[in-house]
Order: sequence, then structure tokens, then C-alpha cells
Amino acid sequence: MILETIKSRQDLKSLSMEQLNILCQEIRQKLISTVTNNGGHLASNLGVVELTVALEYVFDDKDKIVWDVGHQSYVHKLLCGRFQNFDTLRQKNGVCGFPDVEESSTDAFNTGHASTSISAGLGIACARDVKGEDFNVIAVVGDGALTGGQTYEALNNIQGTKMFIVFNDNEMSIGKNVGSATRNLSKTRVGAYDKRKVKLEKFLNKIPYFGPHLFNFIKKVLRAHKLKVLHNLYFDNFDLKYLGPIDGHDLRDLIFYFEGLKNNVLKSTVLHVRTKKGKGYQPAEENPENWHKYLPSTKDNLPVSANVVGETLVSCAQQNEKVVAITAAMGHSVGLNEFQKQFPKRFFDVGIAEAHATTFSAGLASQGLKPYFVVYSTFLQRGYDQILHDVATQDLPVTFLIDNSGFVGGDGQTHQGLFDLSYLGNIPNLTVLSASSENQLKEMLEFSLSYNKPLAIRYTKNVLAKHLPFEKDLSWTVVQKGKKVAVLAVGAVMLEQSIKAFENDENVEIISATSIKPLDEKYLATLSDKIVVTCEDNVLNGGFGNRVKSKVNNKVYTLGVDDKFVRHASVFEQLQENGLDSQSLREFVEKLL
Amino acid sequence: MILETIKSRQDLKSLSMEQLNILCQEIRQKLISTVTNNGGHLASNLGVVELTVALEYVFDDKDKIVWDVGHQSYVHKLLCGRFQNFDTLRQKNGVCGFPDVEESSTDAFNTGHASTSISAGLGIACARDVKGEDFNVIAVVGDGALTGGQTYEALNNIQGTKMFIVFNDNEMSIGKNVGSATRNLSKTRVGAYDKRKVKLEKFLNKIPYFGPHLFNFIKKVLRAHKLKVLHNLYFDNFDLKYLGPIDGHDLRDLIFYFEGLKNNVLKSTVLHVRTKKGKGYQPAEENPENWHKYLPSTKDNLPVSANVVGETLVSCAQQNEKVVAITAAMGHSVGLNEFQKQFPKRFFDVGIAEAHATTFSAGLASQGLKPYFVVYSTFLQRGYDQILHDVATQDLPVTFLIDNSGFVGGDGQTHQGLFDLSYLGNIPNLTVLSASSENQLKEMLEFSLSYNKPLAIRYTKNVLAKHLPFEKDLSWTVVQKGKKVAVLAVGAVMLEQSIKAFENDENVEIISATSIKPLDEKYLATLSDKIVVTCEDNVLNGGFGNRVKSKVNNKVYTLGVDDKFVRHASVFEQLQENGLDSQSLREFVEKLL
Repeated sequence: MILETIKSRQDLKSLSMEQLNILCQEIRQKLISTVTNNGGHLASNLGVVELTVALEYVFDDKDKIVWDVGHQSYVHKLLCGRFQNFDTLRQKNGVCGFPDVEESSTDAFNTGHASTSISAGLGIACARDVKGEDFNVIAVVGDGALTGGQTYEALNNIQGTKMFIVFNDNEMSIGKNVGSATRNLSKTRVGAYDKRKVKLEKFLNKIPYFGPHLFNFIKKVLRAHKLKVLHNLYFDNFDLKYLGPIDGHDLRDLIFYFEGLKNNVLKSTVLHVRTKKGKGYQPAEENPENWHKYLPSTKDNLPVSANVVGETLVSCAQQNEKVVAITAAMGHSVGLNEFQKQFPKRFFDVGIAEAHATTFSAGLASQGLKPYFVVYSTFLQRGYDQILHDVATQDLPVTFLIDNSGFVGGDGQTHQGLFDLSYLGNIPNLTVLSASSENQLKEMLEFSLSYNKPLAIRYTKNVLAKHLPFEKDLSWTVVQKGKKVAVLAVGAVMLEQSIKAFENDENVEIISATSIKPLDEKYLATLSDKIVVTCEDNVLNGGFGNRVKSKVNNKVYTLGVDDKFVRHASVFEQLQENGLDSQSLREFVEKLL
Repeated sequence: MILETIKSRQDLKSLSMEQLNILCQEIRQKLISTVTNNGGHLASNLGVVELTVALEYVFDDKDKIVWDVGHQSYVHKLLCGRFQNFDTLRQKNGVCGFPDVEESSTDAFNTGHASTSISAGLGIACARDVKGEDFNVIAVVGDGALTGGQTYEALNNIQGTKMFIVFNDNEMSIGKNVGSATRNLSKTRVGAYDKRKVKLEKFLNKIPYFGPHLFNFIKKVLRAHKLKVLHNLYFDNFDLKYLGPIDGHDLRDLIFYFEGLKNNVLKSTVLHVRTKKGKGYQPAEENPENWHKYLPSTKDNLPVSANVVGETLVSCAQQNEKVVAITAAMGHSVGLNEFQKQFPKRFFDVGIAEAHATTFSAGLASQGLKPYFVVYSTFLQRGYDQILHDVATQDLPVTFLIDNSGFVGGDGQTHQGLFDLSYLGNIPNLTVLSASSENQLKEMLEFSLSYNKPLAIRYTKNVLAKHLPFEKDLSWTVVQKGKKVAVLAVGAVMLEQSIKAFENDENVEIISATSIKPLDEKYLATLSDKIVVTCEDNVLNGGFGNRVKSKVNNKVYTLGVDDKFVRHASVFEQLQENGLDSQSLREFVEKLL
């Protein structure tokens, strides 16, 4: 096996083209076997096997590659020191599913959220120039990330700084791509590219003795050629040189072009590479959206809460024609496929653009519609300013349905939904609810229909099947009465652990804290001398417990994540690490009794 | 005076061209007299006098105009019902300096931060289409807002929805514009525009009887003409129709084009209008950057803290060649002019692009540089996700210098720096400091040079001249010892009020709380049975006081802004409204004693 002999970019350089091709096959097998076992991102990684092999083959250890979003960095990890423990992918203390500077110095920059790679790469390149150093910077960006405004801000800012952008074009973001500019990428790529000239250069380049002498000549030809015939409306706009599109599964072509870039043929250059998501694995090639992220154990590859939200929103939309749904390129993952099908004109996929999605929703609401922006907790962080400035100052009835809150397991620190109670909790006019069970989530959605203010409903992937009341006056649900300690649990995961820990303990009252903002002050007034323990899958700073503590004079203990990032592991392990599993809760409360 | 007879768009429609031109003169006089008295945005409003008059003349009450950033909405306000009380501009209960839906239904959407108008306008237009209504939506966007990614996200998303974009091109954002794409706007505008054809149409359009019949013909000519000869690299990218550039001070031309848009000549169209910032007022025309925002009482039109930061950063950069400075189009306002002059290669103006600026700073820091991103508190809200995801997860030593924190006076609710302690306070790995005096600010900057972690330093516009120690171990400064009550004040404004309220009161201890995260737990441990009163110019939720309360068992009273937006008024009035002025503090504490 060649793959097991590769520890770094350097090890690739001695391989023949034939060996490199075999290596690609080995990588594909390893990806498929690991991801179908551990879960993770499959289609995107299968799509960049040759691209990554060629990049790491051509560029040197000192060169910096920034992977946009980072879910496609598995191949890089296999090649740069993580083959041996790749079976631990996404597991506790194992290989992270995203680039991770703590894990390896070959991971140049942490990524996870889309559209950051050119900003980061440009920062790295500018630092290089300030320090007078010499290395290459390459940002690998998918077409999905081009719908995000930060990519544009960064492209607009390059202005001749030497860096390369590999535009990995698979005509998908996570779902199908949207937007005029991204559509234009396809349109303009039909420009009359004369492949014969390139073939000639490749041929010349192989000649041993004349090679170096011919190279200058080739450069000139290449330059004249590119500037004349290649145009791409999108990248021309930023005065970037543009090469391509080339076949992203043709190793020889990729290596040829990367060598051209490395040898300073051009300065700030975009290389347009066409790849196929899921390449080499038929189920993923045929249905890359379902295989974008593989979750081994769920039905229809969708978590419970996404199904509940999807079904309930469709029923809300049938009742009320003002209901519209907004997604930032995550329609499938958040459960909106059926809504889109039934109400295509009331469904808006705005691309990976959470800031725009938020203000756009505010615009819709300002005209009397009832917009639901369904979004992962971690990605809504991108809309913080817009929630505050566009939705809340105008008190507009936008509802944020916040999926994937709390601990997210294998995705790790860049994707945790552990901040939403804090970043939403400080926004005036905003009501924040947390659903613990299927029926609560459903009832909160129905409640939202007539709630004429900004509203956020937070839920974890899996909500409880248990029936729990949701009170429309926003009072909390008493799950179990108790005498001495009141455990206030936020969300399905914390409630489940609390019930496990304290069921039938007559000393412990268990509360499902459905309304996080406002707090249920009526309930808090009934606490008498009970000791209060708050449990939240959120950071403590600015979270639920802090706010409860500021309202009551009782003894309050706040349990949650104490001012740190939580790395990848199973959700249960993450609970344990933070003292939030049922056993830890039990032990904690026993000391108080 | 014509201006005083105008109460709505409808009132404009009967005016002759001559009267409209006189009206423009009257508006200019009113703007200059009011703004030089009350402070506010002058240059941008002088630049859009004719543009606004033409827009309001042509469009109807039902049509929606969204003003990007909104600082240029004074002319609109003068024309739509706020002439009579315009002298109250930016004053308590007076006219807001930005569009304000609470103030008037003719203000279609609140703005304040850049680059939101097309998102909002598109939301309004999509809502219109869902509801089957009929009105026009116009977003007026400056060239500065085009450097912001959200504008791009929105443009990418229009895809044929009928809305108009008036591109108000004054070749400035707040300072001078940056970026390739925005530069291309200038380049491409030289396209061979045949003005004679337009003149012909204008002539035909004036003919009373044949007018309507000729109009269809003209439309065809116009359409064919535009599609053939007019191209703008930037807007072509989004499949938008493009008209212009036209002279933004030629009322007749503006009206002609707006009527064309209104009469459905084209669907999604950009009208490129060239205006001159400060037009008609020589000091502002000559130096629009200084006149962008007029502050009647400050030296060099810069607040104290900006001068301190500017001077100290220059001296830091002289000592340490790794120091680099980043601004998001606010270099002048935050005091970086001298830095830019002395260290042009270590100064980066990235445009109005706070998200990119933050990740870019992380990239610079990842290579061992020492980046200082100097930014207003309210605008850094745009970088919340990037601080967390790009700076903090990698523990990179980016320093955020957060200007204009706390109450900001006349700018009002869209610009308050009342959230930073909360949105920064929940981010792991981030240290948050607050400077109260000139020397503290200076010493914190010097301290940051050797502080190798993410750091935020928050300050108000005006910091105290009083010398206050800053302890490098982050312990708080005891300003006055006292027996019964400890007043913990955050920042210059709260400290000043506390000193006024409690100076020489032996019962009251006064603390300058320099480190907000971490808190000074050593000090907190010495409180014994003192009552604690926290004072912060920040919302209470997630703020300083909440976090102090969660750490101690003492009786703690938290004073700050209680879950609401704070509207425009003087800073002192804003303090009073929130019970934070010295008298309120005094009264509050007296009740406790």
C-alpha cells in the first residue's frame, strides 16, 4: 500500500504518475470505509482526491494551503501524517473532521464555516510580504463559498498580493447552488480555450535539457495566451488572472497547472477546477446532497427535529398563506424539502449567506409576511449583527428556527451550538425559546404563527419523544415536583440527563425551561428556599444560568460549558467532559443535599 | 419658502422644474444650518439633494425607498414630514439621524450599518410578489457599501425580482474607497454611452399628444440601446440591467431616468448616478472625509480616544516591526491617519468589511505578526462569528481596539456600543479590557504588545484625563476605598459618574474595572460583606454585572441598560434615561445604605 508510506508532502515527490494514480484509488477506499463507519463528509472528499494529491505533490512543506469550509480536508490529512489514526476520525482525541492547527502544523488555518479561506489566505500572504518571506499561499474554495459575502470582501481586497485560489467547482454548495454570480461562473467558462497550446507546453516541459531554457518562452506564450482568450466575468471583476476550467480528476493536468503557478507564471491567479462530488462511489455520485454528510444511524439521513420542523412548517403554511421559509443553502439538512416542493414561491434559498438571509427575512416581515429562517446555531452566528440591527430594532416578527444547537458531537469546535443562548440572550425585543420534545417543538411553531415579535426557537438534532406541555404564556414545564433542589434544564439533551439522574427523587424538582428570554419569573418567585441548579448545553458566560442567578436570591449553581471550546467526540462524551451527563449531575446534586 | 409647504411626495408633484431647483437650494441651506449646529452627517446629505428630490418627485407614497447606511436620509426627512421639527435632529425625542420606522411610515426600513439595503429591499420586493401587490422598491446604495459582502450576497440573490438599485457613486465610502471590484466600477463607466439618443427620447417624451404612443417605441429603443452599449463589469455579473452613469446633480436627467424605471422600462435595474459629497458647501466639498460626520465641539474633529490610540499605535509600531493596523474604511475616524502615513505597508484598509477584516487579521496573526483591528463597537458586531471561529478557536493574538463603545449620543439605536461586553464576553480564549482614562488606554496598548492571546480593548470616545493605574496582572484599580458599598464601574463614562456621585463618601468604594474577562477574582474575594453595585454602559444581559453576580455571594445590584434599545439623545440624557447618571447612582446607593 502506497498510502501508508506517505507522511508528508515530501514523500509524494518521488512517486511516479502511475503510483500517484494508485494512491488516489487507495485514498478513495480509505475514505469510503472510514466515513461509512464513523460518519462524516464523504462526497466532498471523494471529489477532491486528485486535486489534493496534485496540490500536495507540487507544493512544499513551507507553502500554506487553506481549505475553505474544511470538510474536504480528509485527503490532505491522509497524506500529511494522519493516515495511521484516521480510523479515529471525528472521535474523541481522534482526527478532527476539519483542519485543526492543534492537530498538525500542516493544517495552516482552522476552517469550518464557509467563505473564510481567502480572507485567511490573504492575511497569511500579506504577513509573508511584510516579513519579506517567500512561500506560496493557496486557498481552495468551492463554488458554494462564492455565495458568501466574505469571499467577495476578500477577493475585492487582494489587489495584486501574490496568492492562488483553486476554485473547486462542483456546481453544488451543500445543496444546489443559487445566485446569478455563481451561475455566471458556468456561463463564462465556455470561452475558447485552446487546449492544444497547453499540450505543446506540457510536451516541451518534459524535455530534460532544454526545459529550463524553454520555460521562459513558455511563460510568455502562456501569459499572452491567457490574457487574450480566457475571461471569466466573475473573476475579471477582481482583476485576478484566471486559468481553466480544467478537469479536476486528471492528475496530469492538475500537476501541470499547479507547477505553473508555483513557478511564478502569474501573480494572483484563480485556477478553475471542475470536480464531481462523490467521484468514484456510485451512491454518492448519484445523490451527493444526501451523501454530503453521512450520519450512519438516522432515518432518511435526517435527525428527528428536522423532520418535525419540516412537517410542521408545511402544515403552518397550509393554514396561513403568509408563512414563508428561508434557508442559507441548507434546505435539505434542516428539513425543508417538502416545503420547497409544496410552496416553491414561498421558499427562498439565498445561498451560504446568513447575514443577507437575516436582513432579507426582516424585509419580508416588514411587509406583513411571516418568515421562518431555518438555520444551524453555529451558522446563525454570522447573522448576529443583522438580528440585532435589522430584525430587533424594528421589532419585526421573523422567527429563527435554530437547528443543531448544543453539543454537536463529531463536528467539533467550529460547529458547536454552544453560544446561541448567549448571543441571542443579549438582544432586546427578541424572545428565545428552547424545545425539548417533539410536541414542544411542534407547539412552539404553532405558537409562533400568532406571535408578532422577533422569536428564536432553539432545538437539538434529536428531541425527546416524551410528551411535554408547552405553555403559551411561556411558563416553564414542571416535569417532576421536588422538595429541596430545583434542576432547571434547557433543551432535550439536558432534560434527558436530568430525568435520568433524578427521576423519582422526591428532593429534586425537574423543570423543562422552555422560555429562556424572558425567564419564567412567576416560577422563580415560587422557589422559596430551594437550591437551584441550572443545566444548559451552552457556555456559562451570558447563558441561561447567569441570567437566572441575576434574578433570584436563592443559592444558584450554574452548570454548562465554562469558557472553553469543546472538541470533537460523541455528544455523550462531550456531556461527560463538561460534567453534564446524568451521573455527574447526580453526583453534583448529592453533594448539595 | 417652498420647503415648508412640502409634507409628502405628493406635494412635490405639482412643482415646476424651476421650483424644484429652488427647493434644492433651500434644502442645502437647511442642511448646513442644522448640521453645523446639531452635529451629524453633512457631506453625504449635500451630495444627494437632487437625487432625493427627484426620487420623491417621481415615486409614489406606496413605493418603498431603502437608504443604505441611512446617514444620507436627511433630505428625505425634510421632504416627508419632518421639516417642522428638523431643528431637533439627533436630539432627545427629536428627528433621528437615520431612517426610523417608529418616526414615520415613509421610512421604509431602519438602516445604520452599511450594505443592508439590497437585502431589505429584496425582502420587501419578494413579499410584494408573494402577496400579489404592486409597488416599486428602490435601494439607494453608495459605492462604499459595495465593499461589504452583504451587498454582494443580496445582488447575487435578486435573479430577476423587480427592484431598482440607485448606485450613488461618489467615489468614497467614508474615507477613500478600496478594492478591485469597486475600482472597476470607475473603469467601466467610460463605456460609449450615446447621450444624444437619450436627449432625443427626452424631447419626444415632452410631446403631449404623441407622448403615450411614442413611449412604447422609445422603450424599445431604450432597451435595445442599453443592452447593446452599456456594460458594467460589476453589475453584469449579476445579470442586472445597467443604466448610466448620469449626473446626480442634474435634476432633469434624474427625473427622466426615474420615470423610465417607474414606467417599467426594465425589470431589475441599476441606475448609476455620480454625485459629489459635500456638493454646494465649499469646506465639505474640499474635505469630505472631515465633514463626513460633523462634531461641533471636538479638536481636529477627532475624539480624545482616537488621538490616544493613533499616537500610541505609531509608537508601538516604531518599537515593534510586527505591529500592523487594520481598518474597515474608518482609518481617519479611529485615528489611524498618522500610522498609515508612517507605515503604509503595515496598514490595511479592507473596505466596509468587518467579517473579512477579522479573519484577515487572524491570518496575519497566524504568521507571527501583531495585528490591531481598530473598529467601532457597533460595527464589530458584524465580526462576531469570525472572532469566535477564526481568532479564538486558534487562540491567535489579534487585538481588537473597540472605539465608540457605550452610549454614543445622537447616532441612536443603530450605533450604540451597548452590546460588546455581552457578545465578546461569551467567547472563550478572549480577554476583554475596558479603558477609563488616557493613560489606561495607552498602557493597555503597550501591554497588548507582549500579550500573546486574543484581546479586546474597549473605550468610549472620550476617556478621562485623570491618571489611573493599569495593572498588568489585570487586577482592578481602587479609585477610592470605602466601607459598605463597592461600586464597580466599567469605562470612562461610568467611572466619571461614579466619582461625581461618591467622591469622598467613606462608605463607598469606587473601582475602575479594567479587566472584564477575566474578572478580578482576587478583588472579589476581598469584598467581605460589602454590597456590590456594578455600573456598565452595556446591556445587562450577558454583561459585566451578570458575570460579577455569578461569581460572588454578596448582595449584587447590576446597573446598566435593561433589555432595550436606546434612542438618540445626548450621552448624558441616555445615562439619565437608564438611571446611570451620577444623581441616579447616588439615589440608588443611598437607599442601600
